[in-house]
Amino acid sequence: MTADLIITNALVVTADAAGTVIRDGAVAVAGGRISALGPSAGIVGQGGAARVIDAGGMLLMPGLVNTHCHAADSLFRGLVEDLSLEPWLRAVWKAEGAILTPETVLLGAELGFAELLLGGVTTVMDMFWHPRRTVAAAQAVGMRVSTGGIFFDFPGVDHLDHAGRLAEARTFFEEFAGAEDVIPAALPHGTYTVGPEHLADAKRLADEFGALFCTHAAETQAEQADIARRYGRSVIRHLDALGLLDARTVLAHCVWLDDEEIAILARTGATVSHNPVSNLKLASGIARVPDLLAAGVRVTLGTDGAISGNDLDLWMALRLAATLHRGATLRADAVTTAQALRMVTLDGAAALGAADRIGSLEVGKFADMILLDLARPHAVPMFDPATHIVFSTAKSDVRHVFVGGEQVVRDGALLRLDLEATLAEVAALAPRVAASIQ
Amino acid sequence: MTADLIITNALVVTADAAGTVIRDGAVAVAGGRISALGPSAGIVGQGGAARVIDAGGMLLMPGLVNTHCHAADSLFRGLVEDLSLEPWLRAVWKAEGAILTPETVLLGAELGFAELLLGGVTTVMDMFWHPRRTVAAAQAVGMRVSTGGIFFDFPGVDHLDHAGRLAEARTFFEEFAGAEDVIPAALPHGTYTVGPEHLADAKRLADEFGALFCTHAAETQAEQADIARRYGRSVIRHLDALGLLDARTVLAHCVWLDDEEIAILARTGATVSHNPVSNLKLASGIARVPDLLAAGVRVTLGTDGAISGNDLDLWMALRLAATLHRGATLRADAVTTAQALRMVTLDGAAALGAADRIGSLEVGKFADMILLDLARPHAVPMFDPATHIVFSTAKSDVRHVFVGGEQVVRDGALLRLDLEATLAEVAALAPRVAASIQ
Repeated sequence: MTADLIITNALVVTADAAGTVIRDGAVAVAGGRISALGPSAGIVGQGGAARVIDAGGMLLMPGLVNTHCHAADSLFRGLVEDLSLEPWLRAVWKAEGAILTPETVLLGAELGFAELLLGGVTTVMDMFWHPRRTVAAAQAVGMRVSTGGIFFDFPGVDHLDHAGRLAEARTFFEEFAGAEDVIPAALPHGTYTVGPEHLADAKRLADEFGALFCTHAAETQAEQADIARRYGRSVIRHLDALGLLDARTVLAHCVWLDDEEIAILARTGATVSHNPVSNLKLASGIARVPDLLAAGVRVTLGTDGAISGNDLDLWMALRLAATLHRGATLRADAVTTAQALRMVTLDGAAALGAADRIGSLEVGKFADMILLDLARPHAVPMFDPATHIVFSTAKSDVRHVFVGGEQVVRDGALLRLDLEATLAEVAALAPRVAASIQ
Repeated sequence: MTADLIITNALVVTADAAGTVIRDGAVAVAGGRISALGPSAGIVGQGGAARVIDAGGMLLMPGLVNTHCHAADSLFRGLVEDLSLEPWLRAVWKAEGAILTPETVLLGAELGFAELLLGGVTTVMDMFWHPRRTVAAAQAVGMRVSTGGIFFDFPGVDHLDHAGRLAEARTFFEEFAGAEDVIPAALPHGTYTVGPEHLADAKRLADEFGALFCTHAAETQAEQADIARRYGRSVIRHLDALGLLDARTVLAHCVWLDDEEIAILARTGATVSHNPVSNLKLASGIARVPDLLAAGVRVTLGTDGAISGNDLDLWMALRLAATLHRGATLRADAVTTAQALRMVTLDGAAALGAADRIGSLEVGKFADMILLDLARPHAVPMFDPATHIVFSTAKSDVRHVFVGGEQVVRDGALLRLDLEATLAEVAALAPRVAASIQ
């Protein structure tokens, strides 16, 4: 066997279901997929490779999966501060309306995806206007993206009505069905911005393609009160009554849930995308993650957009997922190290219906891999690699990133996108962005 | 005027009481102190300098102040996981007892201080055995440290009794009175580990030297219950009744306080060192920081030790100080950006009785300064520098660090300490550390 690439001498954290760790391990890649995995000596002995990387002093693990983002909102980072969600959204929507075009969406998404990929996120679910530009940005930096038609019962920067958005969403599904780098989805904004019939339209379309359905849900107390007033039931009951919840549903936030809503999520198999950085910043609250896990709900992690965050640091979300709930519940095992690690690896992949091809290092899966530098003061000593990943890894430890076997980050620098030019373009746009909310 | 160093073309965040920001600013340094500060053109026009640094594309701000740490505990990073404070402490003390000697304390403190200094912390209050080794480590990496004699009513790795510790603490005060790089303090461990008379001895000694007194206080519910059982009053009331609280007192944690205890802290002028990363990880709880601020209590930030953390990232503590309490109280202004920034700058300096010489960039203060790289995706756009510092800066943005005008970090690398050798020594010790709790 001749491989395209072999990475040897790494501390390999496969993040597979068994939690397999291989000290002095190696991975071989052929045709963009992992062709072999095991102790270095065995892999290297199987044959040569076009390229061999000695990863001594580094930890090899799967690229992270971010299940909730609005990458192009990075254009508005730090613009609207110190407000809770609802007044904050009004200011954000004003800025978006003034600034967003297909061109600026592409620019903003490139900025956001550059940050994510440099931080080791190789797959992201992103909800935004002009989803084809989101795809173009993901391809420009070299990462996988789940996105698609968005729904919103108001005029939007796409200048489409509901019928137009439904038609756009359909052509998106048709175009990207079977794509390797795009996981198509229908993404209505939320129950407070999209009426029951339009939500059902979006779900019907997603179901027709066996595809994902993603929306915001139960982010704030105000949202729950609003939906209760309008529909006489809570957000999750409303979604359930409309038949919108199943294993292909991803619900962002889910901060405010009662016990029965948690039981509904468990019964239907819907995924929760937990976004602790955003939930804290916007004073939304602290999600009941330990209760969700205890009920058997799949919990994954999202960065949300940098306009709320104010960055796209999935490692910080991971650290918070593992620690915030200990502090909030006074239970030191409220979320275990293994549970937290699964959120950004296998469970993130499962949420996107892609656990057969991403989310862990296993033979046959895409070679979406990151190498962490361990020659850092916060990485020594290391008694357990999973503990290191969850509790002391920083985004800046990500040194090399591979997507489908192609190296897209080398020594902390993007190989596809001209980051300097992107940053200059964003900086040039900033005065107009600042003026947009005046 | 000829300066030793001029840094020009920087975005200068002085962190002074008025929140002064100078776009295209410069700082001149002479004799280790800031000799001039203002727009670049004016400073450069005043005369030459032995060295001029063009800081275009960088943000210049004061080095951060970390008011609670146990740097040498970095030797035990990740060793004891998923326990709450009390059982965790028992395991930690067992490991410390087996491993700590003056030599290993020096090694561990070098590891911890290396991480802090690379992350832009230029002054740290550190509580640990063998405080002279703590000082030696701080001097080895090139940072300022507040430390001194520790008190603990049990046998310890110093093999001293109370009288011996008191004598040691006195000679420490005598040796470092008036030092520029050491701020001597008396550091009894806590009310549950040091009895009233010994606490009073430590305070009396500190007072004799007009010096700092620092202890752990009200970290957990169990600690409050323990003190109530022993002394019939809560931790802060106990400290107050013993006359231990005044403006030279720094109390680490203060998670569990009732309203009257907060009023006592406000009345006495004692400082709270908030350690959110540790408090969440150890399931201690969420401190009432907004209430402390509203009462006028000075709140500063600490990393605690890496054995709880599991790293020493004061930027993460800063982000949490600014966001955690928004999420916990559902108030988007629970801790403002300006309040959070003060915690790691001027208020941190004030807690250490050093606001006249560190904590902000002002003429006459020590030139303890850090340069943050702004050519990062999470730094663009930037509408407000303080928002950037608090909500999107990562420790890896720290590119250059100066202490007393001397550059101690260049391009993210330590200039004094051989980090590679230190990491190798720590790694070599790790098997013995792992065995220590078996």
